[in-house]
Amino acid sequence: MTKITRPTLLLDEKIAKRNIKRMADKARTDNVDLRPHFKTHQSAAIGKWFRNEGVKSITVSSVEMAEYFAAQGWENITIAMPLNVLELEKINLLAKQVHLNLLVVNLEACKHLNKYIDHTIGVYIEIDPGYHRTGILPDQLDLIHQILSEIRQASLTQFRGFYTHAGHSYHARSKEEILSIHTHTLTELQLLKQTFLGDWPKLEIVMGDTPCCSLVDSFEGLDAISPGNFVFYDLTQYFLDVCRLQDIAVAMACPVIATYPQRNQVVIHGGAVHFSKDTVLSPDNEPCFAMVVEEKEGGWGELREDVILSSMSQEHGIITGPDEWMSIYQPGDIVYLLPAHSCLTANLMGEYVTTEGQVVPTMQSKAMVEGD
Amino acid sequence: MTKITRPTLLLDEKIAKRNIKRMADKARTDNVDLRPHFKTHQSAAIGKWFRNEGVKSITVSSVEMAEYFAAQGWENITIAMPLNVLELEKINLLAKQVHLNLLVVNLEACKHLNKYIDHTIGVYIEIDPGYHRTGILPDQLDLIHQILSEIRQASLTQFRGFYTHAGHSYHARSKEEILSIHTHTLTELQLLKQTFLGDWPKLEIVMGDTPCCSLVDSFEGLDAISPGNFVFYDLTQYFLDVCRLQDIAVAMACPVIATYPQRNQVVIHGGAVHFSKDTVLSPDNEPCFAMVVEEKEGGWGELREDVILSSMSQEHGIITGPDEWMSIYQPGDIVYLLPAHSCLTANLMGEYVTTEGQVVPTMQSKAMVEGD
Repeated sequence: MTKITRPTLLLDEKIAKRNIKRMADKARTDNVDLRPHFKTHQSAAIGKWFRNEGVKSITVSSVEMAEYFAAQGWENITIAMPLNVLELEKINLLAKQVHLNLLVVNLEACKHLNKYIDHTIGVYIEIDPGYHRTGILPDQLDLIHQILSEIRQASLTQFRGFYTHAGHSYHARSKEEILSIHTHTLTELQLLKQTFLGDWPKLEIVMGDTPCCSLVDSFEGLDAISPGNFVFYDLTQYFLDVCRLQDIAVAMACPVIATYPQRNQVVIHGGAVHFSKDTVLSPDNEPCFAMVVEEKEGGWGELREDVILSSMSQEHGIITGPDEWMSIYQPGDIVYLLPAHSCLTANLMGEYVTTEGQVVPTMQSKAMVEGD
Repeated sequence: MTKITRPTLLLDEKIAKRNIKRMADKARTDNVDLRPHFKTHQSAAIGKWFRNEGVKSITVSSVEMAEYFAAQGWENITIAMPLNVLELEKINLLAKQVHLNLLVVNLEACKHLNKYIDHTIGVYIEIDPGYHRTGILPDQLDLIHQILSEIRQASLTQFRGFYTHAGHSYHARSKEEILSIHTHTLTELQLLKQTFLGDWPKLEIVMGDTPCCSLVDSFEGLDAISPGNFVFYDLTQYFLDVCRLQDIAVAMACPVIATYPQRNQVVIHGGAVHFSKDTVLSPDNEPCFAMVVEEKEGGWGELREDVILSSMSQEHGIITGPDEWMSIYQPGDIVYLLPAHSCLTANLMGEYVTTEGQVVPTMQSKAMVEGD
């Protein structure tokens, strides 16, 4: 492995490619379209690994991200955020370039879109399946009818179907609960499909959180899925029983800068600007930002659930562990950790280093600004 | 003000300059050297505002940040992290270029430094004043003696004094408690100074957390201070009674993408990749990532302590507020919010837009990577 001297986000390419292939195969088997959410990796190079598995359409979480991937040759992009009407100028430019889809959750945004769009654009109505972040409740049929009648009046706006993100699967306490969230969401979407299919024979139903998409046996009944996190997984997914330890494709490698055996702590260079402040609960119910994994030639090894990144400031991280663990590390050693939430860690780190030593940039890759 | 279309970090230049001037004046009056911590703003342009107030020496939190500011003409830089011995190659290059100072907290790192450094370098011993992040406890005199004897043997390593960060001032519950942390820390540092001044007549004592530096009447007894956050302040400092509302120099401006009056919530484009997941407790003891401020020509107005950014995912933010507040906002409106922790928000946003519409880049400024 490459020489690590500062906080580094390691990527096991084999694991990530296996995760992509597994999801792509499962989607293919059930004849649903995999439109992966690229907010997790934000990387042109990793995007190509999906393309090699036959993926043609992608999902992103901002106009900026759509611009980045459009510039990389992706031609079918869904921005899975309710339309921000202030960005219509950029959206017009994008819609000229690629097949662009947006989400709408209210009539006002839809009216705005119809008024200002000057290229063909696809629209999904976002449905709230109980997560209560964004979306229209499945029983708000009047509102859905109003939006659809607004869309029908416009020549450039085309209704594509119903999109949903069952993010409450992240708060489930068991596989069964995740599966029941899937069943409930699917039922709601299928009811909507039946209701509106007569008028809109091509309408699709799309869902795609990683817990549901990883655990269900079959995607039957859906037209497309758009999970994101599954490319890397992380501790959150592991403790939800959504993935195995050997499915986690990214780990942080951080230098030890101080050891405090008397307080059972090791301090690393690796803080809130590297990991993010998202937490996961340890089996002892301790909130932690990451957990230590053992070192292993060409990657990383077993999880140490008792050795946790328990506290962070901007660049310092404090790892707490049992006595016998304390004797392992000295200043200058590297500690390997699995982050609580790989998407946010990847966003902060801005690049990956593969376990073979290759640097993989993202749209966040930093450039030193000389002068001002 | 400039037209805002996406999450934007607004900077009120007048307030930031006033904050800088206030701290610089106070330091000048007491004849202590202000060596501001630049991890808060990470910006060459904002650095110049400090230079205009007579600041000559700065503090940073990583080798990368030292490289950035060295390239901007800063000639006296302290990396306020315990030495990472794996970065000695870069440290050598920096030490060739500028007056570089480092922190050491153990004998091993000091031995490494003496062995591999090939330019003059200043060393502070970091003292732990009770924060228990990094540093040597003030009563570990044997260890301090050992480190000093190691330093004395080296020709290029020069002892500069004792450095401390009383970060536990952030957990204080009153001004009195912050002041008592300051007094305790100062007393410990002065005792150390007395003990070692005979052998090291030029040794300095340095401390510098924003709560203590903002609240103490006088810096008497110290040689230098290195606070960082005071340039912007934030909600954390405000609720600690460390600053006034009108001293907070940065606010986020985020577009409304959906409104849910029935659940008393408004959803913005603005999430964990913009604000960071650091929280502050509201007066109602609710953890929140930010709080809404009223709109005001040329900046922002009064704080709405009852309207809080209560939940976030990667790009979505959910604001919760009382009934009467719900009628104010429509999709396409801009909400202004004060972040819980300005340092982490600035790090994520990577650039500022001044209330006069000027873009101010930082070392995190993004560059689109075309191809891979």
